[in-house]
Amino acid sequence: MSTYNPPINNLAFILQDVFRLPEFLNQINFPCECDEELIQAILEEAGKFCSQVLAPINRHGDEQGCSLNDNKVTTPDGYKEAYQQFIDSGWSAFSANPKFGGQGMPKSLQVLLDEMLHSSNTSFCLYYSLTNGAVHALEHHASEAMQQLWLPRLISGTWSGTMCLTESHAGTDLGLIKTTAKPVAEDVYSINGSKIFITGGEHDLSENIVHLVLAKLPDAPPGVKGISMFIVPKFLLDEQGNLGERNAVNCGAIEHKMGIKASSTCVMNFDDAKGYLVGEAHQGIKYMFSMMNNERLSIGIQGVGLAEQSYQTAVDYAKERLQSKSPDSVSKGPDAIIAHPDVKRMLMWMRSNIQAARMSSIWIGMEIDKSNLAKDPSAKAQSDKLVAYLTPVAKAHYTNMGFEACNHGMQVLGGHGYIREWGQEQLVRDARIAQIYEGTNGIQAMDLIGRKLLFNNGDYYKIFADWLASAHQKLHTNHDIPMNLRDEMSSQFKDAITALDEVVHWLLKESKDRSALAGSVATDFLELNGICWFAGMWILALCALKNATYCDEKQAQSQRYLAQFYFDKVLIRHHLLTASILKGESSMMGLETDQF
Amino acid sequence: MSTYNPPINNLAFILQDVFRLPEFLNQINFPCECDEELIQAILEEAGKFCSQVLAPINRHGDEQGCSLNDNKVTTPDGYKEAYQQFIDSGWSAFSANPKFGGQGMPKSLQVLLDEMLHSSNTSFCLYYSLTNGAVHALEHHASEAMQQLWLPRLISGTWSGTMCLTESHAGTDLGLIKTTAKPVAEDVYSINGSKIFITGGEHDLSENIVHLVLAKLPDAPPGVKGISMFIVPKFLLDEQGNLGERNAVNCGAIEHKMGIKASSTCVMNFDDAKGYLVGEAHQGIKYMFSMMNNERLSIGIQGVGLAEQSYQTAVDYAKERLQSKSPDSVSKGPDAIIAHPDVKRMLMWMRSNIQAARMSSIWIGMEIDKSNLAKDPSAKAQSDKLVAYLTPVAKAHYTNMGFEACNHGMQVLGGHGYIREWGQEQLVRDARIAQIYEGTNGIQAMDLIGRKLLFNNGDYYKIFADWLASAHQKLHTNHDIPMNLRDEMSSQFKDAITALDEVVHWLLKESKDRSALAGSVATDFLELNGICWFAGMWILALCALKNATYCDEKQAQSQRYLAQFYFDKVLIRHHLLTASILKGESSMMGLETDQF
Repeated sequence: MSTYNPPINNLAFILQDVFRLPEFLNQINFPCECDEELIQAILEEAGKFCSQVLAPINRHGDEQGCSLNDNKVTTPDGYKEAYQQFIDSGWSAFSANPKFGGQGMPKSLQVLLDEMLHSSNTSFCLYYSLTNGAVHALEHHASEAMQQLWLPRLISGTWSGTMCLTESHAGTDLGLIKTTAKPVAEDVYSINGSKIFITGGEHDLSENIVHLVLAKLPDAPPGVKGISMFIVPKFLLDEQGNLGERNAVNCGAIEHKMGIKASSTCVMNFDDAKGYLVGEAHQGIKYMFSMMNNERLSIGIQGVGLAEQSYQTAVDYAKERLQSKSPDSVSKGPDAIIAHPDVKRMLMWMRSNIQAARMSSIWIGMEIDKSNLAKDPSAKAQSDKLVAYLTPVAKAHYTNMGFEACNHGMQVLGGHGYIREWGQEQLVRDARIAQIYEGTNGIQAMDLIGRKLLFNNGDYYKIFADWLASAHQKLHTNHDIPMNLRDEMSSQFKDAITALDEVVHWLLKESKDRSALAGSVATDFLELNGICWFAGMWILALCALKNATYCDEKQAQSQRYLAQFYFDKVLIRHHLLTASILKGESSMMGLETDQF
Repeated sequence: MSTYNPPINNLAFILQDVFRLPEFLNQINFPCECDEELIQAILEEAGKFCSQVLAPINRHGDEQGCSLNDNKVTTPDGYKEAYQQFIDSGWSAFSANPKFGGQGMPKSLQVLLDEMLHSSNTSFCLYYSLTNGAVHALEHHASEAMQQLWLPRLISGTWSGTMCLTESHAGTDLGLIKTTAKPVAEDVYSINGSKIFITGGEHDLSENIVHLVLAKLPDAPPGVKGISMFIVPKFLLDEQGNLGERNAVNCGAIEHKMGIKASSTCVMNFDDAKGYLVGEAHQGIKYMFSMMNNERLSIGIQGVGLAEQSYQTAVDYAKERLQSKSPDSVSKGPDAIIAHPDVKRMLMWMRSNIQAARMSSIWIGMEIDKSNLAKDPSAKAQSDKLVAYLTPVAKAHYTNMGFEACNHGMQVLGGHGYIREWGQEQLVRDARIAQIYEGTNGIQAMDLIGRKLLFNNGDYYKIFADWLASAHQKLHTNHDIPMNLRDEMSSQFKDAITALDEVVHWLLKESKDRSALAGSVATDFLELNGICWFAGMWILALCALKNATYCDEKQAQSQRYLAQFYFDKVLIRHHLLTASILKGESSMMGLETDQF
């Protein structure tokens, strides 16, 4: 029952009207020519692939799942063929480095490809997403020779990649890992240990699987400073770089999960497996973090993609389903439930959040594009700090939103949402993991308030605050927005960003002597940043309505209502979040362990 | 990995210290003697049954599910034996009328039996819960002869019951149902139609299944006023009342659901099935509502029970799992994650909400007990109005809390929460349905603001408001509570109930001319009532700490922290809810159907 309609029109409005992407790419001297027509063609083609190839196998993939026999994982029927089509069409190389066969498209478009992939088939997308992460790590940290050997086939998708971090006793705290690496020959190490929760650890989609494994060398200092990163391929390469003998890395089990069932999640055992050191010894955690930041944005977008699919299904159902009279109904019989206020509430919540998240993902993609090409170190630092500050917000706020949106989408369908038929319950199950992996959302919140706020004494935040202030200025002085709307929203936004600012200064001061404060209020603080950021995006959308090419007057009216709804019903949460943060840690930390 | 430990100590504190139940039952002349010892014995025995018989088959039931072959539904292995033990031990007759073989225990204890059943095995509990609903309907609306024939074996559990309301095109709007009833002989009707989402519609646990079916007689007025209720048994009875021939009611399919997989959810087809009119013609909707109100409380408790199980598992895991240093840690290695503030936040949220919900379920049970025995019509009306006002709050607020709590419980376990192993993901899936069935939580919110608030012009609310004011008075004047805590909480509670009161008066005034207002703010309004109610419960707990028998000083300290946490971090939501309500309907109702 559930089909995927790529939201091309909304994407085009955002890319072309709100962000004027071709102009922007031109300004930053982006090497690949990306004009309006090309962007539209990409959107159309990506949308077609997702809706025609990936969406149709999504439910079946959930029902059949992956299976493990004789160390081999079989993906659901049709996934192998879809993967082949995916790489044949060049999607796996979309934003990768042309030097290694990539197409070199900007990050600000990659985020939209990610969104569409996640909307149509999030399990499928994960194989690709992890490969992308491995490519990112190798491109930034491996030697030129290693890059030449491994990158082209990872980028083409002939091979896939994984990230092997977690062990059964070491998740968040990677300093505890026990996997070892012993030098056995020039540049060759023997890897021993067991990793869990390895996405795409074993499967039948690609010819080889390139594991990036965190392990400790014999002379490693204790904790996270003693972690190194190794390439451990499923098949070793012969001297010509062709597939050779099977390496001693095997899948011991696959996990039975709540969702993303077509994605194989493996226990991987390394028994004297051959591995090759990436970059320098003991730098693994740093390399992993640079990859993780990339992955965090992509996993955030999983939330946005699933929310979009859930929204589409909910709207379809709500237009069809006739129950009871709505207020001011003039019909004789019952009305479609989309006319009922409480249903509208859920749909408006979904749509106003989804579009804001989508805009912000492109916006952050643009900052990454800027940074990648910046010649001026201070401009580069500016973008990097902004991206560093907002990456945990994107990961957690998008995925929290995504899960809540999918639950709204299920609720709109009532009992029909709880059964398989319309696909809504699968979306809820698939969305739930995104709040957990790549660092739980609690960890994102700690990262934001600890490393990204307090550690640099508010330096990164300052750049975000300046952007928020500029957004406010833009709204406040925009005479194309109806005056009553503009004044009201301007004052709402001012209240919210002032509250955020006051909270930041309070935290910088108070957390010096209150060791448990930051951890206690981290989650509230992240959400406060998230809603201000999203509201800022709505301002950009409003300011782009005049003379927009991809938004007619009726759509412009929708945009104004959606923005107003976001301010009235979501941004308003700043009152709660601020009050809750100011209540601090005292009631939270009172109970001792044995009192639970 | 997940075991169930009945929270006997907390239950005893609430029953014996907070509510002094034996004294209360004595005061209202409850016919069954229920002293302190008996209550403790009941808690122990019910807890033992749930933890030793039902909890061990819960996960297996989820994995195996129900299956349909040749019109017969088979429940998972072990369910038949557990059901037999359940009815042999007399639990099915716990609060039923002694006139028909029930044990006549009070509703204020039934709610705790319900909680423990749902904690340990919510799928199993549903077979019983629906039977209870059928018993309730027949006891209140069927003729004496019908009661004598059907009730004893429903109450003993030899037979089970269902409620057949929903049709594929008629869920919330029962006026649309198409199932027909044609008189064919004295007191016998021929029932034709198809019902969906019928819990326990077909299974192998009981000897007979007694369906209560909503259908329309040939002369029925249109809409809900034309609905009548019929008994349609799976097996007809012979003249001696023994099982006779098979009736023409059959299970056409079972649903594939997100959770509660051991509960059979059936499509039921009635093809000239024989049925018997319950009570009077065209009164079916009234009868169904009286049963539904009973069921709504019970389904609300599903949320509480599942939250409790999730909390227990989360605490077990959080005490075991070592990751990273906590603030002010003095240990050499990593700390158990229970010492980390963001984990404490989730556990405190769960526990402070669960206990408040548990207290309020007993409190509402006591009001039902009072009403059942009240001689004075005005005292009875008082209790009935309070119960009527708070039943939708209980259903929706408990189940929203339950789902959120189970998600917190999963989050505490990180990736280990998303896989089957610890059972957390099943709880999330099982809890989700409770927000949907027995009237979605949106429908509960509409019921509260429409029928229970506006329709009687605030008359029912007034009784609740008086109770809130009395709770405030109790807190304010209690000198056993540490002064700083008392003053702070007293002012927080006053703010919240004043906000609620202002919102109520604003709604009574504004909604007269604003037809979409009530529906637009209904969900926020319900939550505002819910948090004030729960906060009131925490006041009762605080006031009972001095001289409590079932709460030592260390536990009393926990209670104070939990109460403070609830006020600081949950009750504080009243700022948000009030502000959101006052923003009204304008941004919500703007979009036309074709703009979605």
